[in-house]
Amino acid sequence: MYDANKRRVPVDVLTAFTRDLLERHGMSPEHAEIMTANLVEADMRGVTSHGHWLLRRYSGLLDDGEMNPRPNVRVVRETAATVLVDGDSAPGHVAGALTMRAVIEKAREAGAATGITRRSRHFGAAAHFALMAVPHDMVGFATTNAGPTMFAFGGRERVVGNNPIAYAIPAGRERPLVLDMAMSMSANSRIAIFERLGQQIPEGWALDNRGLPTTDPKAFADNGAGAPIGGPKGIGLAQIVDAMTGVLSGSAYAQSVGRAEGDKGAISHMFQATDIAAFMPVETFKARMDAQIEEFHSSAAAEGVRELVVAGEMEWRAYDEAKTEGVALLEPIIADLNEVAASKGAPTRL
Amino acid sequence: MYDANKRRVPVDVLTAFTRDLLERHGMSPEHAEIMTANLVEADMRGVTSHGHWLLRRYSGLLDDGEMNPRPNVRVVRETAATVLVDGDSAPGHVAGALTMRAVIEKAREAGAATGITRRSRHFGAAAHFALMAVPHDMVGFATTNAGPTMFAFGGRERVVGNNPIAYAIPAGRERPLVLDMAMSMSANSRIAIFERLGQQIPEGWALDNRGLPTTDPKAFADNGAGAPIGGPKGIGLAQIVDAMTGVLSGSAYAQSVGRAEGDKGAISHMFQATDIAAFMPVETFKARMDAQIEEFHSSAAAEGVRELVVAGEMEWRAYDEAKTEGVALLEPIIADLNEVAASKGAPTRL
Repeated sequence: MYDANKRRVPVDVLTAFTRDLLERHGMSPEHAEIMTANLVEADMRGVTSHGHWLLRRYSGLLDDGEMNPRPNVRVVRETAATVLVDGDSAPGHVAGALTMRAVIEKAREAGAATGITRRSRHFGAAAHFALMAVPHDMVGFATTNAGPTMFAFGGRERVVGNNPIAYAIPAGRERPLVLDMAMSMSANSRIAIFERLGQQIPEGWALDNRGLPTTDPKAFADNGAGAPIGGPKGIGLAQIVDAMTGVLSGSAYAQSVGRAEGDKGAISHMFQATDIAAFMPVETFKARMDAQIEEFHSSAAAEGVRELVVAGEMEWRAYDEAKTEGVALLEPIIADLNEVAASKGAPTRL
Repeated sequence: MYDANKRRVPVDVLTAFTRDLLERHGMSPEHAEIMTANLVEADMRGVTSHGHWLLRRYSGLLDDGEMNPRPNVRVVRETAATVLVDGDSAPGHVAGALTMRAVIEKAREAGAATGITRRSRHFGAAAHFALMAVPHDMVGFATTNAGPTMFAFGGRERVVGNNPIAYAIPAGRERPLVLDMAMSMSANSRIAIFERLGQQIPEGWALDNRGLPTTDPKAFADNGAGAPIGGPKGIGLAQIVDAMTGVLSGSAYAQSVGRAEGDKGAISHMFQATDIAAFMPVETFKARMDAQIEEFHSSAAAEGVRELVVAGEMEWRAYDEAKTEGVALLEPIIADLNEVAASKGAPTRL
């Protein structure tokens, strides 16, 4: 998709590089490790738009304090099945993971639980948090609001983020079913990579600031918008997510996301975990998931289609390949990372 | 949208007619009242595809036993924040409402709760159940699986339903935000009305049984499929919903939905309620929702767009009008209803 060469970097090399770099931004070893796991996983899964591509931006945010490298992430309110966490401007990777851990603990007791993180920052790929539930034999869900890049339906002014949702569902022989989707046709970070590489974006992804279709990533960036999935449906779901994260958390929502007075960049997340054992024996569930996935695989393909895959399947293939062959990174992104490393006096380059 | 005349019927007249008709199918007064409230609300909201249009079909299902008019809907498993309900082949309107009541009770204690209904049947509009949470100052969520009418992405064989999701979120001055959306571009029942009226459907709604676009509702009905929202995203979300309803409930899933051996027509629902008070004072939340909705309303409209509306807003207008002016029903649907009434020896006609 991206018109640039890739180079593979061993997982342990990339992990050590990133952890060191984050510690050089003032993060604690524990928090640096949490954030690194998130970024490395995204690139292992082939989700280039949500992995190390973002590290240069995060570096700037950590340096200027919009992301707090030494946050006090804490529970501010809780019930048997809910928890509200204050992110203290932490990287969302950290605030989100700590919230999801609390949600999983509560779901173990209550059967299901919901957590909301307020005053957080960009958290990388939503799938990471949903996947955290899977080793606990739970279904995971994660969502977040984001800076406004979508119009009201029929509008031409940015009013809401493209607020992604992610699910991860355990299976048996099959890999977990993992869906991570923005409410716009394409993730914004993907459009940003096209812009970085000087490429046009595919038709149907974006609108310009008059509300007309465009294939120019610069027209998207200039107060344009992501085209919603399913027209009003995508906008509606983006607003619902904003309500359940930004509005319900007490943090920024709608147009104020990323611009809140005295809390620049504040966004909010919501997480859920559902314990499979609350509904049926785990092994039975996993066998049923295998059978469900198999129905998708073995159904008839349209002419010219070679293979039918389910959500997350291509990412698992990339993940397995990255494990043995190394993580594939775009050369321009490696160049960015090495530049950040140099600016922080890190001894190693990728 | 539909090329047929409408006639308005007073709410109380329609309510009495439908309740009587359902009792004549053997339903208890209590269950008939629950199901009637669901159908009347759908038509009041102008959701023609999910109101009385379906009653002729339900009549046949109640008569042949695929829908059980005297079900024993019961809790089979529960934790502090979850409940699994067996629907005993009840109309989903009834099994769903009883499950959602239990979910709301649990959310009052635990802060949030999740319920799953197994061995249920078609439940009408998902929005109805989400809306049940609103008077309790909770956010409501409802979803269901359905008989397969969507292909795997790139496929040409029906493998999963177009599994709708619905949310309802309380507001203050503003009406609750209500989103109810199928994973296909159009609800199947809407396509069926076009077929009943001999009309073509809009472009982009459906695929024929080779996987090619069609505007012929008969080509959809002949093992065609609903076109997914956002391509693989809509298919992915339909599969996730099927996993969290059919697979997790122990009832039918994927291709077996509607065809399960010994349990023909079995579908499953999932419901959630989130207590706003678990996160912030209710009045604060409602004022924030008003402000969020206002940002959508007051943002700039694209050229040629008269007004920006949010999810559920057009339906609230129809609802208010129905309250004072009567419920607008399509004449061909009134004819169907009167036919059913006659066959059951009911004394009144619409």
